[in-house]
Amino acid sequence: MTNHKTDWTPIIKKFVAIVGKNGVVQRREELLTYECDGLASYRQRPAVVVLPRTTEQVSEVLKICDRYSIPWVARGAGTGLSGGALPIEDGVLIVTALMKGILDIDLENQRIVVQPGLINNWVTQAVSGAGFYYAPDPSSQIICSIGGNVAENSGGVHCLKYGVTTNHVMGLKLVLPDGSIVDVGGSVQEMPGYDLTGLFVGSEGTLGIATEITLRILKRPESICVLLADFTSIEAAGTAVTDIIGAGIIPAGMEMMDNLSINAVEDVVATGCYPRDAGAILLVELDGLKVEVDTNKRRVAQLCKQNGARNITTARDEETRLKLWKGRKAAFAAAGKISPNYFVQDGVIPRTELAGVLREIEALSEKSGYTIANVFHAGDGNLHPLILYDEKVPGALEEVENVGGEILKLCVKAGGSISGEHGIGADKNCFMPDMFTYTDLETMKWVNQVFNPKGLANPGKVFPTPRTCGEAANAGKTTEFESIERF
Amino acid sequence: MTNHKTDWTPIIKKFVAIVGKNGVVQRREELLTYECDGLASYRQRPAVVVLPRTTEQVSEVLKICDRYSIPWVARGAGTGLSGGALPIEDGVLIVTALMKGILDIDLENQRIVVQPGLINNWVTQAVSGAGFYYAPDPSSQIICSIGGNVAENSGGVHCLKYGVTTNHVMGLKLVLPDGSIVDVGGSVQEMPGYDLTGLFVGSEGTLGIATEITLRILKRPESICVLLADFTSIEAAGTAVTDIIGAGIIPAGMEMMDNLSINAVEDVVATGCYPRDAGAILLVELDGLKVEVDTNKRRVAQLCKQNGARNITTARDEETRLKLWKGRKAAFAAAGKISPNYFVQDGVIPRTELAGVLREIEALSEKSGYTIANVFHAGDGNLHPLILYDEKVPGALEEVENVGGEILKLCVKAGGSISGEHGIGADKNCFMPDMFTYTDLETMKWVNQVFNPKGLANPGKVFPTPRTCGEAANAGKTTEFESIERF
Repeated sequence: MTNHKTDWTPIIKKFVAIVGKNGVVQRREELLTYECDGLASYRQRPAVVVLPRTTEQVSEVLKICDRYSIPWVARGAGTGLSGGALPIEDGVLIVTALMKGILDIDLENQRIVVQPGLINNWVTQAVSGAGFYYAPDPSSQIICSIGGNVAENSGGVHCLKYGVTTNHVMGLKLVLPDGSIVDVGGSVQEMPGYDLTGLFVGSEGTLGIATEITLRILKRPESICVLLADFTSIEAAGTAVTDIIGAGIIPAGMEMMDNLSINAVEDVVATGCYPRDAGAILLVELDGLKVEVDTNKRRVAQLCKQNGARNITTARDEETRLKLWKGRKAAFAAAGKISPNYFVQDGVIPRTELAGVLREIEALSEKSGYTIANVFHAGDGNLHPLILYDEKVPGALEEVENVGGEILKLCVKAGGSISGEHGIGADKNCFMPDMFTYTDLETMKWVNQVFNPKGLANPGKVFPTPRTCGEAANAGKTTEFESIERF
Repeated sequence: MTNHKTDWTPIIKKFVAIVGKNGVVQRREELLTYECDGLASYRQRPAVVVLPRTTEQVSEVLKICDRYSIPWVARGAGTGLSGGALPIEDGVLIVTALMKGILDIDLENQRIVVQPGLINNWVTQAVSGAGFYYAPDPSSQIICSIGGNVAENSGGVHCLKYGVTTNHVMGLKLVLPDGSIVDVGGSVQEMPGYDLTGLFVGSEGTLGIATEITLRILKRPESICVLLADFTSIEAAGTAVTDIIGAGIIPAGMEMMDNLSINAVEDVVATGCYPRDAGAILLVELDGLKVEVDTNKRRVAQLCKQNGARNITTARDEETRLKLWKGRKAAFAAAGKISPNYFVQDGVIPRTELAGVLREIEALSEKSGYTIANVFHAGDGNLHPLILYDEKVPGALEEVENVGGEILKLCVKAGGSISGEHGIGADKNCFMPDMFTYTDLETMKWVNQVFNPKGLANPGKVFPTPRTCGEAANAGKTTEFESIERF
């Protein structure tokens, strides 16, 4: 990027002129907060943090970066788990935390326009009085930002039925790396021309910054019900999942936890609901009309019974329903209590491969000596294995990252994907060549170059680079990845 | 594109070497078939038609085009209504009619892999024995091809609940204009990197040719029911639509026909079901579990009654259900019987604007003296006004195209879109500047240039060009649109 050390004085002066003194952070100790996102094992301190408030300010800031060829990274709430918001040393971190406005609510047409720094859960809060909600619900929804969700195309428990973020973004106001402001998509679903909205969602901050986001909001279902089924083995639970989907039932969410996760959760949160001797539990949430939910509840219960479920319980009231979910939602935190550290992986497999891949993960756990807990979105085959370790043991993190890499390779081998919802970021770009051919990646890179010709937008993320791959444990697998000249 | 007259002899020899003699059409009278697609008012004869059978053959053909800088157009079944498959004189037309294979069916994971020439309806036929179907159902579904559906991001009656083509395409094997073969998307929903699948769907043949298409198939619902409600005015029917959606009911389809369409249909098809004195009828299809359909049927009927519906009928059996739909499906053909010619427009408005925009269309009809029948996907605000005219009257087509253009401007003014499902093609590129700013269009153009640097893939489509816009009636509105140099 920049080969020389940047002279920041004139640049920071310009930033202050755009966003004011309070919008620029440059004191060393204050910059500490911004060193990493949720992937805390990667840290880098940016030269300066800028906090714009408007589209125009974002545009002016990017024009300065473009003029001085300064690399930059955009950051929402910094809860991402793949290092997508990892700053660049000698670069700018653009933080959207002050852009939390709701710009428009149109209940009749079921849409809301928000700024990128708005917290995911606040969208639902803004419309719930009128009976609406925003469907994508990452676990971090009470702290993560919509802008970050758009960048990473975030998923969540309810994405089985309702789809991930991209299915709920109707339009975007974008600031491109050269500072130009572009509108993509719109307020109706059907728009002619290229689907640049879809292209931008999930592009992990490498194509520009979304400053206004039009989201689709949904009507709250009349009835919601959650079933908890316990099985003696994870395979039996896996077959129940396949049978439920095979019967044409699409639950709002369908989550699985293995014995280790169950006990971790009961140790820490003590829900009292999860049987400690179960091989696996399945949480199945159904929503819709009351008659529909009642019918499907009976069908799901029967399919679970047919697959050997020992007990099937359901919540009669809202309080019990939330209690049934509480353990699932606390699973990652619980892993952090029973082990000094844990590494959460994110991969996808075709649902039908669940049992086989879980067996292979168990074999990996035995071979490596690291305990692996499995908590995941079973309905769409989105695995979240938690590898438990102690960072004080020399070499442990590296070994665990290797095990995590092996799990991703299992996912690819099974016809799946190296990321379900956490993104590639700085963490998984080395695995992209396991999933895509050189030509496939080059095609994505072409698109990047057209939006980001100077390579200033979030460099080092998504695409494999010799540097990052050289550092990774699986370096042998990847070869130098440089874009070919096409024109 | 090509400034000189091409010497076709060596090129055709090469095409024959790739696809065989039977795969090349060059006799003048045989080329006639390929002069236009469903938009028959635009005709151009290609220099040669090539019919490849495999991805490799498509790749070899495009390499020849690339080497000789020959513009080309891809064509499926040629049923498109926006001239997207209009050939280029002195260019190649690549027809996928021989690529009708089904390459893989995976029922458990609900996906099917097909070649682009496969007829839409055949997908459903291939999986219906096992209880599955393919959701997007354009009116032309018994003759249109999946490749064409992908190019135009086709919709249909059931897209209100199930989404348009892009929501059902999981992955694509693409041949890019330089002949390179790229895989985008995959067999699981969640894929990292840029969503090039979404970018490609709806790109109207301007980025490459899809040669293998992975589609999502759905489980047939347990129960389907159609309600027919008749209203004394189109406004009342429009308010009923808003109320139904507002109640959180998402019908599988919700179609409206005005008095003129009703009578045209009864004159021609004589369903006997549609009341000739109704101001408008609403056809509401509900699907799902039987209990769910029964409940929603009662709710929809009540909401229609509240909005002044005189009669609400429903089909007790499959035969009656098909009869209720028959008139709607025959509406375009019926217009062709009651008038020498008709011009079908395709625009979208936010559902809440229905009544107002329909009134303005009526005013346009009175002002222009042309009768306009309204038949449309009311649930998603996708209008299909049919403007009746006689092409033998000098100047009539031009006047009708003007009226069609005015309707599109009404749609844009109401916050909608100039195309719901027919695409832009050669027909509407002049209206793109009514909908997008120069910068928005430039951004799309950048993406085009990266895939299609020589401009050989379907030139003159989607993007406004001085030539086509100079010919259009609304030429005054658009200015020369040439891509800026960015690097």
